[in-house]
Amino acid sequence: MVNIAVLGYGTVGSGVVELFDINKEIIEKRVNDEINVKYILDIKDFKGDKFENKIIKDFDVILNDKDVNIVAEVIGGATIAYEYTKKLLEAGKSVVTSNKELVALKGEELLKIANKNNVKYLFEASVGGGIPVIHPMKECLKANNINEIIGIMNGTTNYILTKMIEDKVSFKEALENAQKLGYAEANPDADIKGIDACRKICILSSLAYGINIDPNKIDVEGIENITLDQIEKASNLGYVIKLIGYSKKTSEEKISIFVAPCAIKKTHPLANANDVYNAILVNGDMVGNVMFYGKGAGKFPTASAVCSDILECLKKDIENEIIWETKPVTLMKPELKMLNDGVNIPVLE
Amino acid sequence: MVNIAVLGYGTVGSGVVELFDINKEIIEKRVNDEINVKYILDIKDFKGDKFENKIIKDFDVILNDKDVNIVAEVIGGATIAYEYTKKLLEAGKSVVTSNKELVALKGEELLKIANKNNVKYLFEASVGGGIPVIHPMKECLKANNINEIIGIMNGTTNYILTKMIEDKVSFKEALENAQKLGYAEANPDADIKGIDACRKICILSSLAYGINIDPNKIDVEGIENITLDQIEKASNLGYVIKLIGYSKKTSEEKISIFVAPCAIKKTHPLANANDVYNAILVNGDMVGNVMFYGKGAGKFPTASAVCSDILECLKKDIENEIIWETKPVTLMKPELKMLNDGVNIPVLE
Repeated sequence: MVNIAVLGYGTVGSGVVELFDINKEIIEKRVNDEINVKYILDIKDFKGDKFENKIIKDFDVILNDKDVNIVAEVIGGATIAYEYTKKLLEAGKSVVTSNKELVALKGEELLKIANKNNVKYLFEASVGGGIPVIHPMKECLKANNINEIIGIMNGTTNYILTKMIEDKVSFKEALENAQKLGYAEANPDADIKGIDACRKICILSSLAYGINIDPNKIDVEGIENITLDQIEKASNLGYVIKLIGYSKKTSEEKISIFVAPCAIKKTHPLANANDVYNAILVNGDMVGNVMFYGKGAGKFPTASAVCSDILECLKKDIENEIIWETKPVTLMKPELKMLNDGVNIPVLE
Repeated sequence: MVNIAVLGYGTVGSGVVELFDINKEIIEKRVNDEINVKYILDIKDFKGDKFENKIIKDFDVILNDKDVNIVAEVIGGATIAYEYTKKLLEAGKSVVTSNKELVALKGEELLKIANKNNVKYLFEASVGGGIPVIHPMKECLKANNINEIIGIMNGTTNYILTKMIEDKVSFKEALENAQKLGYAEANPDADIKGIDACRKICILSSLAYGINIDPNKIDVEGIENITLDQIEKASNLGYVIKLIGYSKKTSEEKISIFVAPCAIKKTHPLANANDVYNAILVNGDMVGNVMFYGKGAGKFPTASAVCSDILECLKKDIENEIIWETKPVTLMKPELKMLNDGVNIPVLE
């Protein structure tokens, strides 16, 4: 039996616990072992919850339990989550997470601690929700130099832009609609201003190039100023407007990187990623362009990625992880052609 | 140092050897070891070839060399390749392959032999060329029941259909064009009649459902009767015609499965996979729809997948592989709505 702990019993945390319950049979058959969620750490009580008896408030119980070797951190943020993750890795426990903020800000340090302690720090769910992208990039493109990454990496903004196109509503109206449906938070800044997409392009770029990329040094523009008029004019020209995270390694020490709304042709592979779907195009020198597409957020899609990382931790083989390091690098926004005729948005070919 | 052997020095085989040469530095850094192609088995001589000194004609040299533990089989077909693969696995060597015919026909048996001998039989390159799809399905969707697979899985036919649409040429003309460019073989039957796509949907379905699916029992229709008129009428209705491999597990003992040209909406995620690109949509009960897109054929894309499987074999951990078994199952072609108005092609929503 494998005992695990889940830190945080919000949307993703409850998804992880429920997923292991719902798909117990097939998972146990596949890994030839039983997965037991021994603890759920949360500050709330969850009276009457099916898994109430697993909920604890004292982190040290998990830290000191020698039977728990794998922990899912789905608290979010870079404060308590950082402290807990560090302690767990130092105590020789593997940690998996959906926490893009923490991975983008502290990934380098946490990966080094994990390596030093012969445990894993995995974060498939931190980019693209349920879409397999980090693991395939690390494992399936291992024989490639990765040169370029272009992605629609934020479900909230993609939902808003899709609704503006489909329902011909303003940004404000589409945002309110997204908030009503729970696709956008009461304070939507991290999404609509591109901060979330920025964290994700930084994680993928750090992984691809082996260079730590600080999200605070990236040129980021959100979608809050996109008008319905721009969207309609772009559409008439055969383009859709999407919030794009972009990065390209142009030399050993130079990376073109930015987050901004861009116009892409309707026939572009990314163009049909609508609503809360994400799509990430990765260019490898041998494989060419590959794209990964799926739901970029949501309880069970994200839990799917967290759970697959937990199952990955069952493998005893600790590989020489591809980690990223702080190196001298120039980050810059490339010059892009503008789509004119009243649209005034950069074009990504 | 890790010694490997490559069986077959054709397009894919030479791609594998060259890839390890070109990307030597980054690969060795990532796996922390040196990869040495010790032998290349081929019946021809390749006088003057850069790797001429590695070419041998006697398979037994490889079979009996205790220093070679990983072999890439890129001969193709299900005769010699089958015999060699069986002997290698029985001798305790891991085998990786791009050979879809062999995997579709003998995968169950070969996976069992590999398991028994504690080695790996990996075949990422057998479906979708360089696209990571088999490994992500096995590893990243491990917490999901996979219910449905829809894919454009043959680059040759997709190239022909794309040219018919873009250049408004007949099937015959587009095929001749594809042959000139090396995208179609002199005898193009396996591609245009859907046989190749059938092998691929069988491999993915066997893997997804754990049930051995015999490619000889599938309803298969090719693209040889598709007319430019049908394509143009479909386009006017907002559809594109693609050769689709489809499968859906409708109950424990029933699988809807077929290969046929289908009409899909231009806004469908698969619709923008053009030319030799492939795209495969997989539905998991937790993650929803995910899609994998990239070049479905070609020297270096396919070599990228073969090489990543070779690197995967370096991991010492032999997992409890998800293999497929012969079970009682009913395979049937589902009833599909037809796109009328003179098109007369089934519609995939």
